[in-house]
Amino acid sequence: MERTQLIKDMLAAKHKAAISYQDLAAAVGRHRVWVASALLGHAQLTEVEASALLRRLGFAADTEQIGCLSQPPQRGAVATIPAEPVLYRLFEIIHVHGPAIQAVIQEEFGDGIMSAIDLEIDIKRLDHPAGDRVQITYNGKFLPYRSW
Amino acid sequence: MERTQLIKDMLAAKHKAAISYQDLAAAVGRHRVWVASALLGHAQLTEVEASALLRRLGFAADTEQIGCLSQPPQRGAVATIPAEPVLYRLFEIIHVHGPAIQAVIQEEFGDGIMSAIDLEIDIKRLDHPAGDRVQITYNGKFLPYRSW
Amino acid sequence: MERTQLIKDMLAAKHKAAISYQDLAAAVGRHRVWVASALLGHAQLTEVEASALLRRLGFAADTEQIGCLSQPPQRGAVATIPAEPVLYRLFEIIHVHGPAIQAVIQEEFGDGIMSAIDLEIDIKRLDHPAGDRVQITYNGKFLPYRSW
Amino acid sequence: MERTQLIKDMLAAKHKAAISYQDLAAAVGRHRVWVASALLGHAQLTEVEASALLRRLGFAADTEQIGCLSQPPQRGAVATIPAEPVLYRLFEIIHVHGPAIQAVIQEEFGDGIMSAIDLEIDIKRLDHPAGDRVQITYNGKFLPYRSW
Amino acid sequence: MERTQLIKDMLAAKHKAAISYQDLAAAVGRHRVWVASALLGHAQLTEVEASALLRRLGFAADTEQIGCLSQPPQRGAVATIPAEPVLYRLFEIIHVHGPAIQAVIQEEFGDGIMSAIDLEIDIKRLDHPAGDRVQITYNGKFLPYRSW
Amino acid sequence: MERTQLIKDMLAAKHKAAISYQDLAAAVGRHRVWVASALLGHAQLTEVEASALLRRLGFAADTEQIGCLSQPPQRGAVATIPAEPVLYRLFEIIHVHGPAIQAVIQEEFGDGIMSAIDLEIDIKRLDHPAGDRVQITYNGKFLPYRSW
Amino acid sequence: MERTQLIKDMLAAKHKAAISYQDLAAAVGRHRVWVASALLGHAQLTEVEASALLRRLGFAADTEQIGCLSQPPQRGAVATIPAEPVLYRLFEIIHVHGPAIQAVIQEEFGDGIMSAIDLEIDIKRLDHPAGDRVQITYNGKFLPYRSW
Amino acid sequence: MERTQLIKDMLAAKHKAAISYQDLAAAVGRHRVWVASALLGHAQLTEVEASALLRRLGFAADTEQIGCLSQPPQRGAVATIPAEPVLYRLFEIIHVHGPAIQAVIQEEFGDGIMSAIDLEIDIKRLDHPAGDRVQITYNGKFLPYRSW
Amino acid sequence: MERTQLIKDMLAAKHKAAISYQDLAAAVGRHRVWVASALLGHAQLTEVEASALLRRLGFAADTEQIGCLSQPPQRGAVATIPAEPVLYRLFEIIHVHGPAIQAVIQEEFGDGIMSAIDLEIDIKRLDHPAGDRVQITYNGKFLPYRSW
Amino acid sequence: MERTQLIKDMLAAKHKAAISYQDLAAAVGRHRVWVASALLGHAQLTEVEASALLRRLGFAADTEQIGCLSQPPQRGAVATIPAEPVLYRLFEIIHVHGPAIQAVIQEEFGDGIMSAIDLEIDIKRLDHPAGDRVQITYNGKFLPYRSW
Repeated sequence: MERTQLIKDMLAAKHKAAISYQDLAAAVGRHRVWVASALLGHAQLTEVEASALLRRLGFAADTEQIGCLSQPPQRGAVATIPAEPVLYRLFEIIHVHGPAIQAVIQEEFGDGIMSAIDLEIDIKRLDHPAGDRVQITYNGKFLPYRSW
Repeated sequence: MERTQLIKDMLAAKHKAAISYQDLAAAVGRHRVWVASALLGHAQLTEVEASALLRRLGFAADTEQIGCLSQPPQRGAVATIPAEPVLYRLFEIIHVHGPAIQAVIQEEFGDGIMSAIDLEIDIKRLDHPAGDRVQITYNGKFLPYRSW
Repeated sequence: MERTQLIKDMLAAKHKAAISYQDLAAAVGRHRVWVASALLGHAQLTEVEASALLRRLGFAADTEQIGCLSQPPQRGAVATIPAEPVLYRLFEIIHVHGPAIQAVIQEEFGDGIMSAIDLEIDIKRLDHPAGDRVQITYNGKFLPYRSW
Repeated sequence: MERTQLIKDMLAAKHKAAISYQDLAAAVGRHRVWVASALLGHAQLTEVEASALLRRLGFAADTEQIGCLSQPPQRGAVATIPAEPVLYRLFEIIHVHGPAIQAVIQEEFGDGIMSAIDLEIDIKRLDHPAGDRVQITYNGKFLPYRSW
Repeated sequence: MERTQLIKDMLAAKHKAAISYQDLAAAVGRHRVWVASALLGHAQLTEVEASALLRRLGFAADTEQIGCLSQPPQRGAVATIPAEPVLYRLFEIIHVHGPAIQAVIQEEFGDGIMSAIDLEIDIKRLDHPAGDRVQITYNGKFLPYRSW
Repeated sequence: MERTQLIKDMLAAKHKAAISYQDLAAAVGRHRVWVASALLGHAQLTEVEASALLRRLGFAADTEQIGCLSQPPQRGAVATIPAEPVLYRLFEIIHVHGPAIQAVIQEEFGDGIMSAIDLEIDIKRLDHPAGDRVQITYNGKFLPYRSW
Repeated sequence: MERTQLIKDMLAAKHKAAISYQDLAAAVGRHRVWVASALLGHAQLTEVEASALLRRLGFAADTEQIGCLSQPPQRGAVATIPAEPVLYRLFEIIHVHGPAIQAVIQEEFGDGIMSAIDLEIDIKRLDHPAGDRVQITYNGKFLPYRSW
Repeated sequence: MERTQLIKDMLAAKHKAAISYQDLAAAVGRHRVWVASALLGHAQLTEVEASALLRRLGFAADTEQIGCLSQPPQRGAVATIPAEPVLYRLFEIIHVHGPAIQAVIQEEFGDGIMSAIDLEIDIKRLDHPAGDRVQITYNGKFLPYRSW
Repeated sequence: MERTQLIKDMLAAKHKAAISYQDLAAAVGRHRVWVASALLGHAQLTEVEASALLRRLGFAADTEQIGCLSQPPQRGAVATIPAEPVLYRLFEIIHVHGPAIQAVIQEEFGDGIMSAIDLEIDIKRLDHPAGDRVQITYNGKFLPYRSW
Repeated sequence: MERTQLIKDMLAAKHKAAISYQDLAAAVGRHRVWVASALLGHAQLTEVEASALLRRLGFAADTEQIGCLSQPPQRGAVATIPAEPVLYRLFEIIHVHGPAIQAVIQEEFGDGIMSAIDLEIDIKRLDHPAGDRVQITYNGKFLPYRSW
């Protein structure tokens, strides 16, 4: 069973039955952003989580399907600048404000980085009279550089 | 007067006098991330803000210095994938979790994007027994695609 | 049902029946440039619009076809410089006259950009004795940079 | 005399004396977008135009300065995707709507392109209660492909 | 009917029946370089030309085949430096002698370019005792830059 | 003595004294395109040619200057796609018509290439009522692939 | 008949029957490096050579197979730096020693190049007590730059 | 003392005194290709070799000069495809014949590579009535892949 | 038999039967990292090793399968920067600490490199109270540059 | 005081006085690889370490010098594939064996990465009769992906 095909089928089932990522998150017991990442093939589900996700989408959740989703995912392939406008805006923020973010982190925490592995992401809708706003929050462990 | 040189001198003064971005933010009346972006040449200060920033760093804040900082900044030049580790982690998040972020935004808001222009950024330190955490928040206006 | 295949079939039907983008625009109740973008998979139709578009091209406009066209489109993939001569000329205009356009916008409006999301595009033919002319008009909302 | 240095000095003079591109356009007898392109080094002034431009900015307009501005300009060097946000939005429009623009031009005019050489550009401010709008107009000669 | 497949079949038929581009040119009433470009999918045939070309190659020249060849071609996709040695030599000539060609054109004609659209190409064999020579001629309309 | 500086000075002298490439060609006894290539640093002059070129431009033509111009030139450095519009059109011709040129050469001459080394280039102005035309001619030795 | 498929089948036959490139070279009457290039699709066989090559590998050598191998090959597509270690070492030699090779050739022969078309390649094994050595020899015609 | 400047001065001295790489090779007791590589900064001279090289070129060969030349060289920086025609031909040989070279080496020697480090290069002029030929020989140790 | 397909089947069998790389290494008589490289198609197995590997995974180990695995592997294709996070970290180490590694190797060993061919790799888990650690060891032969 | 210049001066002093990285490591109380990274500008020294390093190299170790070395370093700029042979071999190991390393780490540790931040590097010389060997050891914390 190909993971790529299974993902395609699951997305089609989600679309057809109008199940939201929040619904899937409730079934799996995880955050909707993480569940979206897992469903799109960029995070690794446990067998229990895989089973819950498959059932919520109306799949049999047999051993093969569960095995397929609980393998380590292959994240990315070749680094490229995204052209899709939602993703590009996230890239542009790094390009324009990245040096400021780096300067403030290093002043606040010292020499180190925010982990992209021990990381949680949250997305919220903020109502606003001049137009609602998207709030994206990254929450990652600070990792200091080691001297040895 | 070259903006590049003025920025260099201001950063040197900041370093020498051990003034934090928070100190500068207080003087200017803006957020420390935005002030860092402005100081690094990626945001545009008003004349009043430029004057306050210059004085806090011990500069004369003469007409030329103020004029130099209140010009429209030239943001970026050629898009490249950053090698600096703090910035690369922000890029990797897009590469790995970008599709999930895009899927959740579009499910929640419909067809559109989070603005990278009408945007605020916040950075907070979260204390944690297993190691403190960096919290970065983007708060941007949702812009729906226009049909015409 | 694959969107790519549906688009291919719709373009073939349009070609065979010699239906113009103006005809499609009249059926959908939208501008011909926007309808061309939607038909080529870069804009999102409402269900009513999708139905009108499909019927004008002689399709059944069943639930699956409508659902397929009213999903959020995936715009672009990797940013590249176009080699196709019509598109390259548009790129060259940015390369040669982009700095002037930027300078005039910023002088006229202050620090900000023209939105590529809240945007309308029009194309007109201008008769001219020395050879007819193409007139392309972008009409986008000005978005000022936010200070915070 | 280096053209690069002369341009720098002229931009500084323009900034210091708060002369707008419209003022320069009036002095030269040309459109402000074209004058901005010429001042930034991407269009070629006649000797009369160069003289008028220099004088309006308070320069002597001697033979060397005029000769410097009336040489053929060297437009661009290496094609790159722009990272500056105003320019990137113009690029994104090509990426997202380029195929639609191409399809409509070719349906309307037949097989050919809009010239990027025999081209005029206009920028207007459109007042709008929900926020003013930028209107950019390209007006270029249609060039049909030649069969031979 | 896919254009790509039709081209493949036509090239196979040309190869099998040992028909030269000159033969095809005679049948179509056009130059052999242009006919080669059209056959390879980079130029647009009229319906009459398409019919003549198809018949010369032994095809039925039915409505669908003619319609397929008389659509606007999609020229190129992503600009890349060619590795094929014949094409690379043409690229190297630009790299080495391009600045000289540009300088001579601009001295002779003023500020402008040679059109790549209103263009004819000819290839001739020149007999020579030290080895025959290839003569490639570009004949393109001079397009002066417009001031406005 | 730096070749780069000498070339700069020679171009300035040519510009100041309004000497054309044809004038230089007459002085050197070579074609104006080749002389332009040599002056711009992409062809190698003999000592006699270098001396003639220098004198025509009003230089002393001392040993050092002659030695500087008669060294092997360093042609190009990194291959890039040109953004300058005159050069880009030459590149686009390869991209669009290159496969046709390759096909016709190989049909006419067999398996091989047109040399970019044993090559002459000519540029002519062709008067035309609908606008004068640029005629560029490449005349290069055919080099057959060797089997061994 | 697809050339790609025929090559694949011939390589499989060569592997299965344990025929060396030297065996093939003997059958064809050419050098083993050239035969390897031809078999891999980068050199053009005559009909006689193609027939001999096919028969040695146990193929029928019918008209279609011979026609397929005796067409002009399409060498390369897009220039890229090779990652395969054998090929990369050849690239690294250019990167490290290329300037020295260029300097010595130009000192010895004058301004010109070694042809990559009129070229023979030989590979020999040199026995050596500290480990056998690979000897690769390029033998290419010197082509002097033409002045005109 | 900058190595770059010293190399420049040595090349100027070599040019002025018309000393060939063969002369330098004789003085140093090494091959002219290797000496060219060392002089151009891509090989490391011993102190004795550095001294001999410097003296042959008329330099004092003081401690600083010798120390400068006997440091480990920094070979290359960023891998790029060379545009210089002599170097490009060497690159094209890899592109066109590289797979054949790889196939023959691996058939002859087994799984491994020719070293680019334990390598000698020779260049010879071969007289030939149809034009002299360049013979470049690489002689590198075969390195078998290790299984462990 | 396609190597790609055989590898896919073998990986599926390994996954299904929960056989670790250590199990495979024991069966083959090699290190688990090398066996993983060989299984993934980047190292060459002997016929005996191929047979042992196939049998341990439950395959018949027939002549064709063994022949398929004991061919020289095709390592890599085009050099790219990896986006997969595990691989990117290995790349970042070169980017950040590469110059230091180079400096220490050259100080310790003289002018030369660590071989990537005569190389062994080991991976160990180190228990640690603050979180276990990965230890990767490269053990490669030092290859001194040859002077000749 | 520019960090770049200070590093240059310190490297020159190290070279002149023949101080090894091991000597510097002893003075600073750190590993020689880390000290090399710090000296080359890719790691951050404490003020005490900076002072010890400066003095060992014969510098005054004044406040400005110490402040310069104890700032957060700017690691890398644009990610590129290294051409320098020592660094390229490290890159090739990722390209060839990276997938195996990734597979073994994930089998041994689960879904996660080896940190490039909480990392130590060691380099040892291993005596060997067939030629000494370089042993490079990475020791980095395993970071498991977080589910949330």
